[in-house]
Amino acid sequence: MSGEFKRIETYFRPLAGLEGLSLLDDASLISPPEGVDLVVTKDILIENVHFLSSDPADTLARKALAVNLSDLAAKGADPYLYYLGLAVPSGVSDDWFAAFAQGLADMQDTYSLSLAGGDTTRSPDAIMLSITLIGTVPKGGMIQRSTARVGDLVCVSGTLGDGALGLLAAQGNIPANQHLLENYQRPVPRQDMVPIIRKVATASADISDGLLADLGHICTASGVGAVVRQAALPISDDANAVLASMPEYRPLIWSGGDDYELVFTVPAQYRAELESGHAAVSIIGEIIDGAEVTLLDLDNNPVKVSRSGFQHF
Amino acid sequence: MSGEFKRIETYFRPLAGLEGLSLLDDASLISPPEGVDLVVTKDILIENVHFLSSDPADTLARKALAVNLSDLAAKGADPYLYYLGLAVPSGVSDDWFAAFAQGLADMQDTYSLSLAGGDTTRSPDAIMLSITLIGTVPKGGMIQRSTARVGDLVCVSGTLGDGALGLLAAQGNIPANQHLLENYQRPVPRQDMVPIIRKVATASADISDGLLADLGHICTASGVGAVVRQAALPISDDANAVLASMPEYRPLIWSGGDDYELVFTVPAQYRAELESGHAAVSIIGEIIDGAEVTLLDLDNNPVKVSRSGFQHF
Repeated sequence: MSGEFKRIETYFRPLAGLEGLSLLDDASLISPPEGVDLVVTKDILIENVHFLSSDPADTLARKALAVNLSDLAAKGADPYLYYLGLAVPSGVSDDWFAAFAQGLADMQDTYSLSLAGGDTTRSPDAIMLSITLIGTVPKGGMIQRSTARVGDLVCVSGTLGDGALGLLAAQGNIPANQHLLENYQRPVPRQDMVPIIRKVATASADISDGLLADLGHICTASGVGAVVRQAALPISDDANAVLASMPEYRPLIWSGGDDYELVFTVPAQYRAELESGHAAVSIIGEIIDGAEVTLLDLDNNPVKVSRSGFQHF
Repeated sequence: MSGEFKRIETYFRPLAGLEGLSLLDDASLISPPEGVDLVVTKDILIENVHFLSSDPADTLARKALAVNLSDLAAKGADPYLYYLGLAVPSGVSDDWFAAFAQGLADMQDTYSLSLAGGDTTRSPDAIMLSITLIGTVPKGGMIQRSTARVGDLVCVSGTLGDGALGLLAAQGNIPANQHLLENYQRPVPRQDMVPIIRKVATASADISDGLLADLGHICTASGVGAVVRQAALPISDDANAVLASMPEYRPLIWSGGDDYELVFTVPAQYRAELESGHAAVSIIGEIIDGAEVTLLDLDNNPVKVSRSGFQHF
């Protein structure tokens, strides 16, 4: 048996669900459940572009699924199935594959997900991962980017900037910090936010490109503007400790990528409920007429910021 | 506007269907039509592994969709939607993107297909393409690999070996030949075979790994063996002309990859209909008890062959 087929049989077949047909066919077969829409995301991760060569294989597998699960959470979708594209240079070991498959298995258990198919191949140089993830929402229930309304509150989950600061820590540019490193290496997609997103959000996105960039995407798609107050941005104790001694990194709070928190808009009538009931949600601003996203500093003066966020070209 | 977003807007947004939400969202939204199952394939193509750096961008785009459409045809599925993952080095020009998008557009027109989403990113070195293609079949109607039965006829579409010989021609190892080059560079997926596959096939696969390897996949999945007669293998005039002077390449007829024809099994009751009505179908053998695929030479002696086909690891 060749290396490719043996590795598929050993490491990936045990991960396959019914739809994957034991990974023995040209294709997978999905019989969509009644009454649902399918929400589909796709993300590519490339060695030395999106992750470091030193990142452990199980961490990489978790992250590859997490970045896609984060998109599903933003849409109010439950995880369902995924497809794995994997290209690796010829020197990669069986140990690497075993650890990678273990990372996938852990995520499948945590997020009720199964492998439906994919493709494995040789890469000349860098490891490349391509995940297509399918989730489900009740029919008509996907929360889009294009449906924010003037007067809505702008909300975020969790704390901001930990992922970007974690990358700096992983690169040795700031002192090592376990919380920040974990946040970069093992981001936790906010599937726990799906019930609140489905209940109250008018529009939603995940913060993979940076808060202002992703809020900008919502505003562009919805034809509205937004104002955000710096004083309201949620920052973790660990991030605050770093920024106290290195204030030059403060803009990462609103422009750093790799965060995997959610930014979403909510009708103002939910303000009291959000302020009382959801520790993980912070109200950071409002949707307004216009086309710009404006950040107000601690004195309520507009801050000049780049909205461009993370770019790959 | 950054390069990545501008390129998405300029080249890919015009290709997006309704489900793609103008490529402005984190995800796409599929409301599956009533009464269908979804058939999903995924293939990765990497520069200098699956295609040559000299291959034109529009050719590459066509081929990336063709290899996945070929899988759908084997399953009896109609094309529906696709997702494009594209990683390119920083030096790739707008002209390249324009030609690439034109190749996608041509295929969308020919095969009634639309772009639903994807991801574009920077690659450190090689161009990498990852396509996830979704097709539809009437509920319960996907033709799998695992359902061949003893006594079935083994059939193939078209002619064999043209793709593998075309690669040799593209590499300059055999004299240039337009038909063979075209077959390698612009393979035509056999969507025209979908009606006959749906009507008569018990099991089916496309011949991307080579005839005996892919028939072997059907046999493994179905728990059967097969016998194939060399004398019955369909060979194009152009391939025959090459083999007349270079007989050492004859094994590519049964072991060469990149063919994109279909191998499928059919109950024996259809023999007369296949022999009279379908010029594109050749009966090349039978499904038998056992686990081996045996090739009989022109004197009906078994030929020792490798069943491994194309391997990437």
